[in-house]
Amino acid sequence: MKALVYHGPGKMAWEEKPKPIIKEPTDAVVKILKTTICGTDLHIMKGDVPAVTDGRIIGHEGIGVIEEVGDAVTSFKKGDRVIISCITSCGKCEYCKKAMYSHCLDGGWILGNLIDGTQAEYVRIPHADNSMYPIPTGADEEAMVMLSDILPTGFECGVLNGKVKPGDTIAIVGAGPIGMAVLLTSQFYSPAAIIMIDQDDNRLAVAKSFGATHTINSMNENAVEKVMELTENKGVDTAIEAVGVAPTFELCESLVCAGGHIANIGVHGKSVTLHLETLWSKNVTITTRLVDASTTPMLFKTVQAKKIDAKKLITHRFKLDQIVEAYATFGNAAKEKALKVLLTA
Amino acid sequence: MKALVYHGPGKMAWEEKPKPIIKEPTDAVVKILKTTICGTDLHIMKGDVPAVTDGRIIGHEGIGVIEEVGDAVTSFKKGDRVIISCITSCGKCEYCKKAMYSHCLDGGWILGNLIDGTQAEYVRIPHADNSMYPIPTGADEEAMVMLSDILPTGFECGVLNGKVKPGDTIAIVGAGPIGMAVLLTSQFYSPAAIIMIDQDDNRLAVAKSFGATHTINSMNENAVEKVMELTENKGVDTAIEAVGVAPTFELCESLVCAGGHIANIGVHGKSVTLHLETLWSKNVTITTRLVDASTTPMLFKTVQAKKIDAKKLITHRFKLDQIVEAYATFGNAAKEKALKVLLTA
Amino acid sequence: MKALVYHGPGKMAWEEKPKPIIKEPTDAVVKILKTTICGTDLHIMKGDVPAVTDGRIIGHEGIGVIEEVGDAVTSFKKGDRVIISCITSCGKCEYCKKAMYSHCLDGGWILGNLIDGTQAEYVRIPHADNSMYPIPTGADEEAMVMLSDILPTGFECGVLNGKVKPGDTIAIVGAGPIGMAVLLTSQFYSPAAIIMIDQDDNRLAVAKSFGATHTINSMNENAVEKVMELTENKGVDTAIEAVGVAPTFELCESLVCAGGHIANIGVHGKSVTLHLETLWSKNVTITTRLVDASTTPMLFKTVQAKKIDAKKLITHRFKLDQIVEAYATFGNAAKEKALKVLLTA
Amino acid sequence: MKALVYHGPGKMAWEEKPKPIIKEPTDAVVKILKTTICGTDLHIMKGDVPAVTDGRIIGHEGIGVIEEVGDAVTSFKKGDRVIISCITSCGKCEYCKKAMYSHCLDGGWILGNLIDGTQAEYVRIPHADNSMYPIPTGADEEAMVMLSDILPTGFECGVLNGKVKPGDTIAIVGAGPIGMAVLLTSQFYSPAAIIMIDQDDNRLAVAKSFGATHTINSMNENAVEKVMELTENKGVDTAIEAVGVAPTFELCESLVCAGGHIANIGVHGKSVTLHLETLWSKNVTITTRLVDASTTPMLFKTVQAKKIDAKKLITHRFKLDQIVEAYATFGNAAKEKALKVLLTA
Repeated sequence: MKALVYHGPGKMAWEEKPKPIIKEPTDAVVKILKTTICGTDLHIMKGDVPAVTDGRIIGHEGIGVIEEVGDAVTSFKKGDRVIISCITSCGKCEYCKKAMYSHCLDGGWILGNLIDGTQAEYVRIPHADNSMYPIPTGADEEAMVMLSDILPTGFECGVLNGKVKPGDTIAIVGAGPIGMAVLLTSQFYSPAAIIMIDQDDNRLAVAKSFGATHTINSMNENAVEKVMELTENKGVDTAIEAVGVAPTFELCESLVCAGGHIANIGVHGKSVTLHLETLWSKNVTITTRLVDASTTPMLFKTVQAKKIDAKKLITHRFKLDQIVEAYATFGNAAKEKALKVLLTA
Repeated sequence: MKALVYHGPGKMAWEEKPKPIIKEPTDAVVKILKTTICGTDLHIMKGDVPAVTDGRIIGHEGIGVIEEVGDAVTSFKKGDRVIISCITSCGKCEYCKKAMYSHCLDGGWILGNLIDGTQAEYVRIPHADNSMYPIPTGADEEAMVMLSDILPTGFECGVLNGKVKPGDTIAIVGAGPIGMAVLLTSQFYSPAAIIMIDQDDNRLAVAKSFGATHTINSMNENAVEKVMELTENKGVDTAIEAVGVAPTFELCESLVCAGGHIANIGVHGKSVTLHLETLWSKNVTITTRLVDASTTPMLFKTVQAKKIDAKKLITHRFKLDQIVEAYATFGNAAKEKALKVLLTA
Repeated sequence: MKALVYHGPGKMAWEEKPKPIIKEPTDAVVKILKTTICGTDLHIMKGDVPAVTDGRIIGHEGIGVIEEVGDAVTSFKKGDRVIISCITSCGKCEYCKKAMYSHCLDGGWILGNLIDGTQAEYVRIPHADNSMYPIPTGADEEAMVMLSDILPTGFECGVLNGKVKPGDTIAIVGAGPIGMAVLLTSQFYSPAAIIMIDQDDNRLAVAKSFGATHTINSMNENAVEKVMELTENKGVDTAIEAVGVAPTFELCESLVCAGGHIANIGVHGKSVTLHLETLWSKNVTITTRLVDASTTPMLFKTVQAKKIDAKKLITHRFKLDQIVEAYATFGNAAKEKALKVLLTA
Repeated sequence: MKALVYHGPGKMAWEEKPKPIIKEPTDAVVKILKTTICGTDLHIMKGDVPAVTDGRIIGHEGIGVIEEVGDAVTSFKKGDRVIISCITSCGKCEYCKKAMYSHCLDGGWILGNLIDGTQAEYVRIPHADNSMYPIPTGADEEAMVMLSDILPTGFECGVLNGKVKPGDTIAIVGAGPIGMAVLLTSQFYSPAAIIMIDQDDNRLAVAKSFGATHTINSMNENAVEKVMELTENKGVDTAIEAVGVAPTFELCESLVCAGGHIANIGVHGKSVTLHLETLWSKNVTITTRLVDASTTPMLFKTVQAKKIDAKKLITHRFKLDQIVEAYATFGNAAKEKALKVLLTA
């Protein structure tokens, strides 16, 4: 089969690889129908994720059709269409029993990382019963791809951890794909105001069309002053970090109100400064989280009920064998005005 | 009347001051029966709390007997014995309605800070109905003093925010009075292991006698290694910071398990380094809180039911007019083996 | 002044009464601008609420302008426009400290019940600071009236107690004003399906236009069978009782799924049969609640942010002195197709 | 092998049965070391559980040593000592993903009910990885047997569902084994008062020795009056039903305070009367639950940490082949002063 293979920093190729086979009785082999590229994949390609080694097939999102299942798989059979979760869950370790699948002792984020992933014609999915979801007849396949990673990530790490409530004022720092997923899923809880902060006017305009009530271009405006002006100097109930660098996290520290929440989503490569000299008495809660994808069934219901238009996140479409070109587009997201790029086999 | 008056860094005196009078219809004037000294008072005396100015009467803890009440006070009358809360609550602002009394728009921590306090023969208590609690006949007055501040602080900022649960393993960093209050009140939730970390062997020995299951002298041992050894390399469910400096907070960051909690209690004068490069994916929750003293009624019931022996925290007793001497003892707590010093009028 | 006075079962009159005056320093006297009639007022008029005696001015909803305040009132002054809460809160008893204002030891539901109410030109509001909310310039006065009682009742007793979540399937039994308030406020949490059950096709049609995804006329259809058909025989996540009689509560018992919630809102005059022989093992939660009106500030923000169109509930408008006529209309709600009737001074 | 076999109402025998074998790759066969008898087993023996048919081996509690595991079992191997959970969990259905194992689509309470159980020399355990827990070296085997069912049942259905908190006043209605398990596990949360209500003075005396602060023999005293006297006429924060008949549930309705909880544990054969005419406005929460045994790992830690002395519940000990005699003792529990009877192979 063909697959996108990582060959060290800056090197990738759409090349021939052996088709995966069942290794454990709980495995499934899935023929990929659609997949997409995550910001993390770009980090991998730059060499930022040392666990990923030469020869690895990248990708942890997608939908497909079951090609074969192991003897112990009971929920799926050949021919079933499935959503592949970015997080693999054994269903039986102490973390899985707490629905903290990200820390599964025999899973977690392994696809396209520690084992071969979904940017390929076929993929082996371990612990298939707990790591995939069925796609019913009539469901929109493009929307289903958004359930692999981006919607659960925005919702769990940003919205749920940030405890967004009706009537709240929230700030989302970073209008990339993840920030946009937060923007869409935060609206499940009817906040009164959603302030999107970014440095790209195009993305801010998109955010406005996706439901942001206010946008701030932090290149042109003092974001803290502007937010304080909008909130009667109280700050926001929830500040959500969707970038992954120190300045944006520290901006969240400055934006949060007394009693408020800071929800970190960004993947940070360096430490940040926590201003406990002001925060110690502000009764704030700060959370971190690697997505567990435990809310996929809930999010699936909201997509099916048209409470969210998940396809909005898709800006570009390619054939699967054009994936190298798709990486170029996604890697140049600001200029290309790209959020999610969809690849169809 | 006589009162302990702050006269700038390092200067205090037990001197004559006018007896307080009712200013607002919601005020009460209380004759102090017993009071105590808080670590914060030491900071004030050093000049670390600029809001406290020359001439201020210090102190925010104590019990007393009502001398006079304003026209709008309905819960208390002359002669009633009361616990004075360290936090003043108006009962009607948006924060008080959320039980976040620490941020009361007309209260919060003002006693012995923005208005005269309790280390005096008499004190005026604003918003009396919401800022004091009745002492029933037969209650132990010494234990009641511990309900003004130290027990709610340890319980709310450490135990509740830290979400201590039955069977948990927790670490308390700092075996001073606040750390000891955490130690006592955490046992309401039956954690399996309580690891006390400090640099003073005497305090660690006391902690052991108060219920710590393990103690670590971080001068002599590598606390992180020891905790990892005790927890099968997982870390603790909850790490509670009860000191207020960067190294102890950062120690908590190293001790917490995936999915765990860091509860900050310490009053920090400087920022700390938050290691998001490791914590971003650990699903941790970090909280800060200035005590709201909203749990005083709950804690009162546990004291009355002998679920906690609050008096254990008292190591030294003085007459109220010996308060300057009491400060000397408390200010030299390690050598004096002091936790709380009690002052009786 | 003029007021609607109860004179025993079936007897009411719009007649002259003395204008109220300040009795306690925490009182306010409010000139009524707009008020409305509650289903409970109809019960009072039938003689079903024995606490209400001859001569009582009825009504517990409305907005007005402050005429006078007592000495201890600090949040309001003459001329301020205010929302009057149906629940009076002293702000200092043990229940108010838990935000359970319905059980306030010196308040609760007393307006138009134990003391004179709002269907009058003026009303005295005890504990004014804790029992009213300011109306900002530009706010829609008609929408504000819905914040006195009906929106908090539907939201707190139905939606919050019923723990409605994104993606859920819920059933609302009773499409009267309260059921409609549940319907509107449940959408704050983005349930996937909202099934409205009633016996009046007109009300069901209105429910559909308000966002119900399915409607069932339980006169014509077997509601249990229909709900099971819609839910793959699982039942609904939350069943909300908004009528107040045994058959509708027992219907909720039949509709709820394993692990689900039954939230009672109805005012019941008689006991009901609880089928523990089937429910004991279904892991269900049943709640009751007299509205606390503790969420009025949150709901106010959602109204201001246009997350809800509260005015939709108003079907009829009268002048305040036409109130007897308004009662006739509201008392014949099904025929008159009435939800809330608005009275303007 | 030998096993206790049900042969219709009133008929049981310790007789020869085929030794169980692995049927599914997720199965284990376990050699029983210790087991016990549940109140439910007595109901089965009376013919009250129609799902149990002639020839069924009874029993759903116990510990053992692994004899053999299926190919897909990864957590256990031959020779491991294990706690058998009374609830079988597949780990992958929608209910297991919510930790609501009682409603597992391929499990739940099936042992000694729909499939052969643990009162035998050997038992087959389906979904072994998710339905058993390892016993470490040095653990007390007798205490471990209490983790199969009785401790999780009392804790989950009574204590957790009843939301017992420090300082609370709770009532437990029924001082049988389950009521005693509630009594022991409620103390994890340090309630101020625990009122045990029963009709057997011996059991009440045992309850006192297990930590009840008050006992009421409802044959001799009016339980409602006594509880109101003890609670200043407020009622209890939590009333826990541990019998399973209408009068005891209705007693709980009379005992609960405004804002309080009723937690049902009892297995009810008939409906009860729910007094909504008084409860509708009391802001109460009523819960039902079939034990999920999801807290077994937490309870295990509390047992190991000696936070609870689980063995206290064992009053009688027999050899496994004396099980018919053990049933006679347990079936006559009041006279025999029996709580749990332990059977050792």
